[in-house]
Amino acid sequence: MNDPIRLLQNHRSIRKFLTTPIEQEKLDAILHSGQMASTSSNMQAYSVIGVTDAELKKRLALLCGNQAYIEQCPIFLVWCADLHRLSAASEMHGTEAQTDTTEHFIIATVDAALAAQNAAVAAESLGLGIVYIGGIRNRIAEVAELLKLPVLVYPVFGMCVGYPDQTPLMRPRLPLAAIFHQETYHTDNELSAINEYDETTREYMLARSEGRANRSWSEQMAERMASPSRLHMQSFLMKQGFLRK
Amino acid sequence: MNDPIRLLQNHRSIRKFLTTPIEQEKLDAILHSGQMASTSSNMQAYSVIGVTDAELKKRLALLCGNQAYIEQCPIFLVWCADLHRLSAASEMHGTEAQTDTTEHFIIATVDAALAAQNAAVAAESLGLGIVYIGGIRNRIAEVAELLKLPVLVYPVFGMCVGYPDQTPLMRPRLPLAAIFHQETYHTDNELSAINEYDETTREYMLARSEGRANRSWSEQMAERMASPSRLHMQSFLMKQGFLRK
Repeated sequence: MNDPIRLLQNHRSIRKFLTTPIEQEKLDAILHSGQMASTSSNMQAYSVIGVTDAELKKRLALLCGNQAYIEQCPIFLVWCADLHRLSAASEMHGTEAQTDTTEHFIIATVDAALAAQNAAVAAESLGLGIVYIGGIRNRIAEVAELLKLPVLVYPVFGMCVGYPDQTPLMRPRLPLAAIFHQETYHTDNELSAINEYDETTREYMLARSEGRANRSWSEQMAERMASPSRLHMQSFLMKQGFLRK
Repeated sequence: MNDPIRLLQNHRSIRKFLTTPIEQEKLDAILHSGQMASTSSNMQAYSVIGVTDAELKKRLALLCGNQAYIEQCPIFLVWCADLHRLSAASEMHGTEAQTDTTEHFIIATVDAALAAQNAAVAAESLGLGIVYIGGIRNRIAEVAELLKLPVLVYPVFGMCVGYPDQTPLMRPRLPLAAIFHQETYHTDNELSAINEYDETTREYMLARSEGRANRSWSEQMAERMASPSRLHMQSFLMKQGFLRK
């Protein structure tokens, strides 16, 4: 096992940060690492907004569902899928970019995610901690207004970055047999893998909560999936120019 | 600069592979690293199919637009967004998973991308090379049938993995000023950043093609974006149970 693999396999999300600012050279290394991730046909269809302003972070923390660590962390990165730049490039050559397809929505979303994950790995290699914030999609139209996002840009997720002020337990993952399929997709061991993982997560939840919680993964997921989530997303995205066909 | 950052910043896609198989311990380390990436609310809404069968790789190479390296590489990983497992978890508890929202499409797509990028970094740290294959979406319905994908699963991208048989130039990225925004989104330096990058890419294209190509990034992008791409995606995804609201 080499250093990068040890690092990758040691990830845990950090939700409590020191107020220590991040050195500029470290931030540069993180962003540059993000940029070097693969990108679909070199489109680089993403942007990242670095929020350090205390008032702005406070308002974002509120919009993301009152998550205090967004306010605490020295920098909050908002990773956006971005077809605006490609549209501008087309305009330079007198053509119109076809940006409203599901295909380009996927390209931009994936580009943002690949860059963000490289940035996350770089941050952790420098002794920093991160947590992804899907809550940025809770009140996404207000976030877009606050961050002055033009059409063809949407915030996929946020990311708190800072020096960790906690050492959380590592969260166990599904057995490899659940997510890895040889040659073709197989559903035959889906239920046994879920059952196996239910036992693992029950123990983890007990340890994490010091004996109070006793819910399995499948129970948590069933509860979470029972009601539709963030139903405003489709109309918001269409309004931003995405996903129209 | 530490080892992981050097590794991240040294990425280049590999499109020519040795036939040398990948050691099982290395494959395990790659997949385990993928699993440890962040995942939205621990949903782990993705799967990965490892294709090593020669006939299957040959058919996939054809379906992805005749990309020979898919056939050449010892293992072709197909990264899928997967809500099928969450649906099964809900059924275990007698509830119905609300899987057809745009929100859950994003969650599953991002989960697949984060895991894949961790796997890519792990592979490169072990001396292997990778290339993402968006061409898997060219004839996605046929790929889904070939790989026996159930509803609520779609292939986001493929990934060739193997020992490199080439050392390509590193492709320069957009200036940081184009993708990074301080506090809020800014469009004011969008054009100057594109112009700057156009010069950079012109030189890179010339070097890569030994003097034949002389097209700038914005020209390439304008041409690429002028016609809508993979218009079958929306109806395919809806048929798979995604993106209905």
